[in-house]
Amino acid sequence: MNISVIGCGRWGSFLAWYADRLQHQVVLYGRESSQKMKTLYECRSNGLVTLEGSVVLTSDLGAAVKHAEILVLSIGAQSLRALMQQLSVLDLNDKAIVLCMKGIEALTGKRLTQIVEEYTPKTTTVSIWVGPGHVQDFTAGIPNCMVIDSRSQEAKEMLVKAFSSELIRFYYGSDLIGNEVGAAAKNVIGIAAGMLDGKNKTALKGALMARGTREVARLIKAMGGNEITAYGLSHLGDYQATVFSQYSHNRRFGEAFVRGEPYEELAEGVATTTALLRLCDLYGVEMPICNAVDAVVNRGEDPDQVLLDLFMRSLKKEF
Amino acid sequence: MNISVIGCGRWGSFLAWYADRLQHQVVLYGRESSQKMKTLYECRSNGLVTLEGSVVLTSDLGAAVKHAEILVLSIGAQSLRALMQQLSVLDLNDKAIVLCMKGIEALTGKRLTQIVEEYTPKTTTVSIWVGPGHVQDFTAGIPNCMVIDSRSQEAKEMLVKAFSSELIRFYYGSDLIGNEVGAAAKNVIGIAAGMLDGKNKTALKGALMARGTREVARLIKAMGGNEITAYGLSHLGDYQATVFSQYSHNRRFGEAFVRGEPYEELAEGVATTTALLRLCDLYGVEMPICNAVDAVVNRGEDPDQVLLDLFMRSLKKEF
Repeated sequence: MNISVIGCGRWGSFLAWYADRLQHQVVLYGRESSQKMKTLYECRSNGLVTLEGSVVLTSDLGAAVKHAEILVLSIGAQSLRALMQQLSVLDLNDKAIVLCMKGIEALTGKRLTQIVEEYTPKTTTVSIWVGPGHVQDFTAGIPNCMVIDSRSQEAKEMLVKAFSSELIRFYYGSDLIGNEVGAAAKNVIGIAAGMLDGKNKTALKGALMARGTREVARLIKAMGGNEITAYGLSHLGDYQATVFSQYSHNRRFGEAFVRGEPYEELAEGVATTTALLRLCDLYGVEMPICNAVDAVVNRGEDPDQVLLDLFMRSLKKEF
Repeated sequence: MNISVIGCGRWGSFLAWYADRLQHQVVLYGRESSQKMKTLYECRSNGLVTLEGSVVLTSDLGAAVKHAEILVLSIGAQSLRALMQQLSVLDLNDKAIVLCMKGIEALTGKRLTQIVEEYTPKTTTVSIWVGPGHVQDFTAGIPNCMVIDSRSQEAKEMLVKAFSSELIRFYYGSDLIGNEVGAAAKNVIGIAAGMLDGKNKTALKGALMARGTREVARLIKAMGGNEITAYGLSHLGDYQATVFSQYSHNRRFGEAFVRGEPYEELAEGVATTTALLRLCDLYGVEMPICNAVDAVVNRGEDPDQVLLDLFMRSLKKEF
């Protein structure tokens, strides 16, 4: 099929590489000013993947969209609205948009598919592709299980057919709210995990997993999703890659932050924390871990005291 | 309080050390023939903990029981019935028995508290002390959260009061079936995790966690417990210590087994696998991960093929 990938970062470049490997006709779009794109133009490699000659590189957004039957979006979540504004003037009719990105809009608390739907005609389908997996593992041939979810059953089936391989095995999601919120929220748990690592409290990651899934389940339920989705591939299933992996940007950010070490840029989970607290207010849900991450990262509170309060406070029932 | 710990292994010796630190009057019992006990008699240390002079060492079971208001049991789960037969001829009236051990009787599928109740008078209370934590972390001063559960509310409150400290913070459990089954079953997931590590498929531990909790939740529900308990401290909350830790005996066993490397002894999870499959038959529940561990460890099937079938089989809905 004709597939265009918008976004030339770690995931975007991997997705172009992967779709090309599955014999699709692939266009990879990146902004002309992007250093990452410049490297791909020059070397056709970024240290993670090397793109075959069959992958067309472009910085012409109109050409990329025109090519696509499937339009894969993989950019920073907080930049999605700006991209959709650009895309909205192009013809998106009958295209299948797939979001390979995780987050919630910090300013509004909106889910990413909600943002896309504000800018697309009725004939465009919107799906999400979430779940565990690191680019470094996939390119090393280590397989994983992921999830495709959408309000369109037809789009789900088409995408699973287009992207299944021995490397990635898809499950059909059936709770778009739960899978979107769960996928986004795991980045917040990843920051909390890094905070534990940074404070030599790695042993508390078990409790973090039990209580993290619990508060995300509560939010999903309050938003009209199915609470059990928090325990599926999109959230709990992504904890290995997020809570324990050396590759996790969010985990490493949390670790560097509490140690007072330098970090390159804010992790996606920081904006997600703000967004989730907005949703907590809106839906009247308590998320103590999310609050703790916010207290440390955004309000300058002492991580030792915050973590102690979070895990070791007064006795109570577990559920 | 007067506390006797029965069992002088890693956990037994730690529990004696811990109770002594909390100013209880502690007796530690180990069989005279036990090499571990001999080491403790000679050195008062086993490389993990060093016991103060205030901890009384004994190989006289009657004396240990007579001393105890609280009787902590920490031995191999498959040896519990034999110990209870010995204890049943002693006066156990009004004593609080606490099981700091995880497993299910392989021959019968019985939970450990069920076995204890077969041999104790009505005035004896039976409780469990489960959840995450490695001895090596605790002695390094790293705190954790654990669970006390029992059919007796009075016993739960007494035990939480007796054992709480800045090192261990207890939650009150309210699902004895779920907490016992969950605590035992995590050892099976630990073996499966080791199999993934041994086959360079660590990235699939995320999927293992999502699907492992799911099948354990199904069994707990079928047995009359609350399925959400699988996602609490006793099961999911113990995954850091079991699925990811270098200290986990079950994880290391699974890794060594699939690599064809030598291992010291069968892990507790092997007997638990047999027990869980017995419960699956009894309650009509499917547990694919438990089955896969059994196939590799007990039926000699090829781990590569079994793991592939487990995680990468035909497409379907996640829940």
